[in-house]
Amino acid sequence: MDEAREVVVLRYGHRPGRDDRMTTHVGLTARALGADRVVFPDNAGQSAETVREVTDRFGGPFDAELRSDQAAVVRGFDGVVVHLTMYGERMQDVEADVREAVGAGRETAAGGAARDLLVVVGGEKVPWALYERADYNVAVTNQPHSEVAGLAVFLDRLFDGAELEREWAGADRSVIPEATGKTVVDARETDDDAAGDGADAESGPAGDR
Amino acid sequence: MDEAREVVVLRYGHRPGRDDRMTTHVGLTARALGADRVVFPDNAGQSAETVREVTDRFGGPFDAELRSDQAAVVRGFDGVVVHLTMYGERMQDVEADVREAVGAGRETAAGGAARDLLVVVGGEKVPWALYERADYNVAVTNQPHSEVAGLAVFLDRLFDGAELEREWAGADRSVIPEATGKTVVDARETDDDAAGDGADAESGPAGDR
Repeated sequence: MDEAREVVVLRYGHRPGRDDRMTTHVGLTARALGADRVVFPDNAGQSAETVREVTDRFGGPFDAELRSDQAAVVRGFDGVVVHLTMYGERMQDVEADVREAVGAGRETAAGGAARDLLVVVGGEKVPWALYERADYNVAVTNQPHSEVAGLAVFLDRLFDGAELEREWAGADRSVIPEATGKTVVDARETDDDAAGDGADAESGPAGDR
Repeated sequence: MDEAREVVVLRYGHRPGRDDRMTTHVGLTARALGADRVVFPDNAGQSAETVREVTDRFGGPFDAELRSDQAAVVRGFDGVVVHLTMYGERMQDVEADVREAVGAGRETAAGGAARDLLVVVGGEKVPWALYERADYNVAVTNQPHSEVAGLAVFLDRLFDGAELEREWAGADRSVIPEATGKTVVDARETDDDAAGDGADAESGPAGDR
């Protein structure tokens, strides 16, 4: 979202079939809430395809990549690594530290250089080495809930809400916010004529599988 | 979360099999992020059972209910109805209005009485009547992503982060936040001896199906 810094979301582990929708939702949430890129395990090709289709239709830039060795991506990452886990430190206690470490938001003014950020979202059991490699193990509550929910709250707080103002490039279509209505317009045209193609994107992720 | 006001999350529609995990995650997210109760369609019994099991283990109060007619629950709700939809008004534009309508957070001081809040999360296609009945159709971005992510960000902003400080009653166990570690203690005892039973709750919702 910020040209000076890349925010990457890594989905750690994926069980084809069982995890398809959760992995897709991790990717779509990463895109919608300000990350620049998502990295999936290479057995999550269908989720990557869905995220790319949504990006083609609703805009970017946003990349969905497949990588075979998640552990190597984490080990080799040149930047700050945050691992989201219910066993970690409370987000409200460490979020200012994380923002300062990456040079985000208000803390940027303090003078630190922007650093890339890898946000690791667990799927199947993650290895102990990940807890040790992570610069921050962060808990969005120490309660069991949803990796998608944890990612969403983390990104919203990381960007301090600025991600909601993001503009999208290269979109075929866009939704016009309305008090009561469903209006999707052709984003390739300069006027705001409703394209009337909202039906396939109703209530929930378009192309969600 | 607040004794003077009840926040209820309604999952609208559920396709057994396909939606099981998403519906479970809606319920667990509602619980973890400060809602008092979740209402599922009556074909989502397995999700309700999982949410109740987590509440038994990690504490409450939190209720998971099954109701056959979601439309009737919405129509008959005595309070404010928020429908989360990518076609709605931008959350950042209406969140202060929603808080004021229910008498939450800082706006409570202004003197309005607390009102109950129903947060409707779409599953399969929702009827047009829901858009009309809702006091607010709210979009957590006008992008397709995840109903779980939308719910999470909405609740975190509704409660202004206070939900993260919630204490849990009647828990069998609780997680101790740690920079590097996984420590689960027996919450029924007064001391903090690690119970060593973290293995079954690792990385993701305990009892998630």
